[in-house]
Amino acid sequence: MITIENVRQRAQADARTYGYYLNPDSEFLQDLLEGLKKNEERYGYPSCPCRVASGEFELDRDIICPCDYRDPDVAEYGTCYCALYMRKDLYEGKAPILPIPERRPAEKQTRAYAVTSQVASQAVTGEAPVMKTAGPAAVRKKLWYCRQCGYVVFREDPPYVCPICKAKREMFVELEITPVG
Amino acid sequence: MITIENVRQRAQADARTYGYYLNPDSEFLQDLLEGLKKNEERYGYPSCPCRVASGEFELDRDIICPCDYRDPDVAEYGTCYCALYMRKDLYEGKAPILPIPERRPAEKQTRAYAVTSQVASQAVTGEAPVMKTAGPAAVRKKLWYCRQCGYVVFREDPPYVCPICKAKREMFVELEITPVG
Amino acid sequence: MITIENVRQRAQADARTYGYYLNPDSEFLQDLLEGLKKNEERYGYPSCPCRVASGEFELDRDIICPCDYRDPDVAEYGTCYCALYMRKDLYEGKAPILPIPERRPAEKQTRAYAVTSQVASQAVTGEAPVMKTAGPAAVRKKLWYCRQCGYVVFREDPPYVCPICKAKREMFVELEITPVG
Repeated sequence: MITIENVRQRAQADARTYGYYLNPDSEFLQDLLEGLKKNEERYGYPSCPCRVASGEFELDRDIICPCDYRDPDVAEYGTCYCALYMRKDLYEGKAPILPIPERRPAEKQTRAYAVTSQVASQAVTGEAPVMKTAGPAAVRKKLWYCRQCGYVVFREDPPYVCPICKAKREMFVELEITPVG
Repeated sequence: MITIENVRQRAQADARTYGYYLNPDSEFLQDLLEGLKKNEERYGYPSCPCRVASGEFELDRDIICPCDYRDPDVAEYGTCYCALYMRKDLYEGKAPILPIPERRPAEKQTRAYAVTSQVASQAVTGEAPVMKTAGPAAVRKKLWYCRQCGYVVFREDPPYVCPICKAKREMFVELEITPVG
Repeated sequence: MITIENVRQRAQADARTYGYYLNPDSEFLQDLLEGLKKNEERYGYPSCPCRVASGEFELDRDIICPCDYRDPDVAEYGTCYCALYMRKDLYEGKAPILPIPERRPAEKQTRAYAVTSQVASQAVTGEAPVMKTAGPAAVRKKLWYCRQCGYVVFREDPPYVCPICKAKREMFVELEITPVG
C-alpha cells in the first residue's frame, strides 16, 4: 500500500539529493502529494500531478515525478512546473514564484492525449478497445553517454542535464556498442 | 594507509549526498567507523561492521558499506541495519530507533557463512585449502536500466532504489545489447 | 547567452549534490565564475579557470569543471585545485586552506600544452594550420563498471571516486560487452 508518508519521504529524499526544497505551503504540498499517490495507484507510477497522463508507461515516462523537465525548470524559473520542487531563494520567499511555460514537447502531449481521449470515448460508447495509435514500440531507446563525465543512460533522448556532472544535454552523444570477441 | 578520518569523511560525504545523517552518539559512531576501517584493512573493502563477511568480494558485495539494504532500511525504519546512517527525524530524536530485521536474503548469508566457516576450520585443522564452494563465477551479472530515468547498472540484481530518480527496484529491466554493425 | 548567474547556479547545485560549499570570499568566487564563463564562451565548455585548456574537447575533458580531480582533492585537502569547491570545515574557517599540488598527470598537461603552443605559434607566424599532434582519435574510451554498486561509465579511465557509492577508483573494472543473439 502506498501512503502519503511514503510519497512525501521519497520527494524529500530526492529534493535533498538535488539541493531543492519542497513547497513550504503545507496545504498546497499536501494536494500535490495526494495527486502523486492517486496517480501511482491508478497507473503504477507517480506521474506528474499537474499533467494528464495516458496510462501508457512509455508515453508518460517523461512526466513521472521527478519529471524530465524539473531540473531545467528549477534552473530557469526556480521551481518545477507544479511548484513541488523549489530552489532555496524561492523557498525562502526571496524571489517570486512565476508562471512556468510547459516545456514538454507538444508532440509528446499530443501522443498522450490521443491515447487518453480514445480510452475515454471507449468508456462512453462501450465500444470494444481498438488498436492503440501509439504503443511502446513507437519509442526507440538508445544508449547515450555524457562526454564530460562518462555517465551512461538508456533512453529515447538524453536528459536535459547530466545528473552526475550537470553538463548540458548537448554534451550527450549516442554510444554505439561494438561486440567484443 | 586508511585512517579513521578517511573513513569518517567518506561516510559523511555519502550521508550528505543522500540527505542522511551519521549517528549522533559519538562513541557508538566511533565503534562503527573502527569496524569499517578494520574490515577495509582485512578484506580490502569496508564491509558492514555489523555483519559477517566472507572475504570473497563477490559474495560480500551487497554488504560493502553503504550496503545494498541501506536505502530501503532508511526509508522504512529511519536508519540502516547498523544505525550508522539515519533519517533526519531519528537523528534529531523526534522518532525512536527501532530494531531492524535483516533484509539480506538468507541465501546470501548462507553462501557467505559457508566460506567463512570453511576458512576457519582450515585454520584450526591445518588442512590444505580446498576448492571453495562458491566462487565469483557463481555470480552472474547483467546490465539493467531504470525504465524511468534510463540509469544503467551492471549487477547481479537491480538496486532497491534507483540512485538517480528514486524509482523502485521493479522499474529496472534487463538491458540486452545488440551489436552495431 | 551564458550569464554569471547561470554559472553560479550550476556550481551551487553541484556543490549541494556533493555536500560541498562554494568559496565564501565573494570577490574571489566572482573571479572564478567569470573565468568559467569566459572559458565556456571560448571553448564551448567551462574548463577549469586555474588551468590552461587546449580547446580540444577530448584533451580538456578531465579539466572541465567540476574536474576529475575535484573529489579526491576535496577529500585530501578540503578544497579543489582552484578552491572553488570546499569542504564544510574549511568553508567555516575551522581548517586552513593549503596549497594543493597539481594532480593532473603530467602527460595530459603536455598533450594539452603541445596543442596550445602550436595554435599560438600559428597565430604569430600566420602559417597554415598543420595536422594536430594529438586529436580525439588519440583517446580510447571504454566501458567501466564499479564492482561495488554496478555504476557504468564510458571514459578513458575510470573516475577517482564512484559518484554513486563513493568506492575508490580501484573498484572499477572494464566492462566487456558480448552481444545477445
